[in-house]
Amino acid sequence: MTEPAAVIERLRAALGERVDLTAESRNAARVDKSGHAASGVPLAVVHAASVEDVQSTLRIASETGTPVVTRGAGTGLAGGANAGEGEIALSVRAMDRLLEVRPDDLLAVVEPGMLNADLNAALAPHGLWWAPDPASRAISTVGGNIATGAGGLLCAKYGVVRDAVLGVDLVLADGRLMRLGHRTVKGVTGLDLTSLVIGSEGMLGVVVGATLKLRRLVPGEVCTIAATFPDVRTAAEASAAVTASGLQPSIMELMDAASLAAVHALLSLEPPTPGAAQLTIQTDGPAAVTEADEIGAVLRRAGGTVAVSHDREEGERLLAIRRSMHPAMESLGTALIEDVSVPRSALPAMFDEIARVEREHGMTIPTVAHAGDGNLHPNFIFQAEPDAYGVVEAPAHIWAAADDLFRAALRLGGTLTGEHGVGVLKRRWLADELGDDQWELQRSIARVFDPRGILNPGKVFGA
Amino acid sequence: MTEPAAVIERLRAALGERVDLTAESRNAARVDKSGHAASGVPLAVVHAASVEDVQSTLRIASETGTPVVTRGAGTGLAGGANAGEGEIALSVRAMDRLLEVRPDDLLAVVEPGMLNADLNAALAPHGLWWAPDPASRAISTVGGNIATGAGGLLCAKYGVVRDAVLGVDLVLADGRLMRLGHRTVKGVTGLDLTSLVIGSEGMLGVVVGATLKLRRLVPGEVCTIAATFPDVRTAAEASAAVTASGLQPSIMELMDAASLAAVHALLSLEPPTPGAAQLTIQTDGPAAVTEADEIGAVLRRAGGTVAVSHDREEGERLLAIRRSMHPAMESLGTALIEDVSVPRSALPAMFDEIARVEREHGMTIPTVAHAGDGNLHPNFIFQAEPDAYGVVEAPAHIWAAADDLFRAALRLGGTLTGEHGVGVLKRRWLADELGDDQWELQRSIARVFDPRGILNPGKVFGA
Repeated sequence: MTEPAAVIERLRAALGERVDLTAESRNAARVDKSGHAASGVPLAVVHAASVEDVQSTLRIASETGTPVVTRGAGTGLAGGANAGEGEIALSVRAMDRLLEVRPDDLLAVVEPGMLNADLNAALAPHGLWWAPDPASRAISTVGGNIATGAGGLLCAKYGVVRDAVLGVDLVLADGRLMRLGHRTVKGVTGLDLTSLVIGSEGMLGVVVGATLKLRRLVPGEVCTIAATFPDVRTAAEASAAVTASGLQPSIMELMDAASLAAVHALLSLEPPTPGAAQLTIQTDGPAAVTEADEIGAVLRRAGGTVAVSHDREEGERLLAIRRSMHPAMESLGTALIEDVSVPRSALPAMFDEIARVEREHGMTIPTVAHAGDGNLHPNFIFQAEPDAYGVVEAPAHIWAAADDLFRAALRLGGTLTGEHGVGVLKRRWLADELGDDQWELQRSIARVFDPRGILNPGKVFGA
Repeated sequence: MTEPAAVIERLRAALGERVDLTAESRNAARVDKSGHAASGVPLAVVHAASVEDVQSTLRIASETGTPVVTRGAGTGLAGGANAGEGEIALSVRAMDRLLEVRPDDLLAVVEPGMLNADLNAALAPHGLWWAPDPASRAISTVGGNIATGAGGLLCAKYGVVRDAVLGVDLVLADGRLMRLGHRTVKGVTGLDLTSLVIGSEGMLGVVVGATLKLRRLVPGEVCTIAATFPDVRTAAEASAAVTASGLQPSIMELMDAASLAAVHALLSLEPPTPGAAQLTIQTDGPAAVTEADEIGAVLRRAGGTVAVSHDREEGERLLAIRRSMHPAMESLGTALIEDVSVPRSALPAMFDEIARVEREHGMTIPTVAHAGDGNLHPNFIFQAEPDAYGVVEAPAHIWAAADDLFRAALRLGGTLTGEHGVGVLKRRWLADELGDDQWELQRSIARVFDPRGILNPGKVFGA
């Protein structure tokens, strides 16, 4: 370990003005959108503008034994990119160029700091898009999407990040650059390290470039279905019936009564029927209209009150209710947004478990779900005083309820995190899901990439 | 290292009749469908019937330092499952049960020895299928498909094995069982070891079970288009034009003149026009007919003579020509079937390179391609006397031509192997593609799973 002042000195000598020592930037690097903050303040924020900047930073970090926390736009929800005491916050947000678009090969090469929405805006004139669409797409980076293995609303039909990346360029802890993966759609030379990097949350290296697998924009209409159900279990059963019917919506979002009430209040809409839950479903592609009609019939048979719209703008208005979930939760207090995922058929049972946790822990847990793929976001709301940095931490009784909910998801054959990652907030449950042997195996693999453990220490695996 | 006799003794004590010492079985385990054979004969073939059998075998192998080569149906094309002197051949072919089918969750749990075609026959009554469809699907196992990261004809539209596996159960070198992955469609807890195992060619452990991601059988018609072109470059440009048009065939197979001539001769059909190449294309789903007509128009503009059939059986007859490629090559001599893959737009340039290699090395290289994803199978044909075991090896001048062809694919941004794997036959080119640093990193990761290097030694990474 080298003295902090000496590390800063070396960073400034190599990177000059890219080394940011302002209190404002260093404090901003402590937090993400989870509300969680690292303890202490990082040494410096390095604003990398090139692969060489990243390599220089990592060489210095490696030689001085200084931990490095890679950040994009800081929109994570698990504390995975929060930088604290003694650490270098390495921001790749300024590396935001679209380097290549190949409509004939359906691929693009991008830098990691490019926002998902900016990428898609740049691809649209080519008739192309990158399918991963986390709810944060307007504010989150492609690199962050890769680091977390992000999902989104369209996954059931169009896949997650893992399905949409052909290769990544990775700078290792010692500063060496590796080009992993292929520019071809098929390729099986050696181990699939590209997939290993997807979702690795900054522990294996720094993603400095990515070759993305694109899709052509889907032609035809978009139809939107809004269906109201007397209670959330009926809505969950209806969504399972849609999946079981073989029909393939592009989006199938479920909102429970507490979520609906909060959003309606935020948007000054008429209050919803007490207890009622809602499914918002979209179909697209050449068969959109037929599929929407058939889905409508399934929902009616399942007890829903159904409205189908063939108008794209009306559809966006209906989806806006779902997209307002996050601000609606913030209007209630501080929200810990959870992210369990269960097999699709277990969605009704998971809502029963959430109702049980609400009862037993004496709280309301507004929940939305990407029902088409069994991924739920229960929101734990609490009131807490911010600390000196404006940061609030979830209190113990909230974590006790979350613990209960996580274990229920695991019992149903599910997982702790469908798309947000483990970060710091879920690391203490990781071994419960993986088992001790696999936990240890995974940690040993990370050590091959980073023998001294300087990349994002304390995240995912804890110590 | 323990004496071979003592290893056999321990295996028999633990596994009884499952330990097969017959010369016939041991010789059969030396080879796969590549024609390559391991030097020497394995100690024994263990026919595992359960996870416990695999664990027992690996515990004994680990304790005695005996190498283990896992085998399915032995249909590999890279020598990756060939067992030789001093090795245990561990066959999982008898573990062939379909353990669970969940239409509501679109998943199935299978044992590794089940044949791909048997799986799909069992899924069809549920209206489901597993999309990976290597040309060997009638004779290759799901476990082998996973071990090689297999592809097939339908990949451009329906994905490869990597896209169709949710989790694998893996027995490590020391006999411990790990359950990797999820039963959920989303899941990002820790590192994606499931993807790491896919395509790892028996080096990380023994796959003893898999949770597969299924699709619903595609409703609607299947249309088949056969298009003839004056030469292979025109056919390749036409296939690139189809990809660039945004139309999405389910199958797009290209056959060059030498392939067509050999198949026509085998099937006693009229000889094709000299020099002519052919594209066989299928469309499916609700828009099959429209897409077939539009693809037909693209092909005509590209210089093709086009016939479109809306009849499923007629389509199968047209595809039968493509499916007869392997026996047609065998009728010419011994075939070394190669497997390079290039970005789709580089397909015409790759055919130019093949023509150059043919010229410079004075040979004909009949080539077929999964044109929809840029994956080519050039066949190197040679005549050679079988050795005492009936095995023939490719001579040096064949490997010199293959070397030239591999390097051309890499120059075009391609890869050595799109779907067959590295095995022993391509290991000496692996570092050319990966670079020395990544080669070393990959090997170190394999060592985390298998510290003593007893799993499939000599394959992929060589020594």
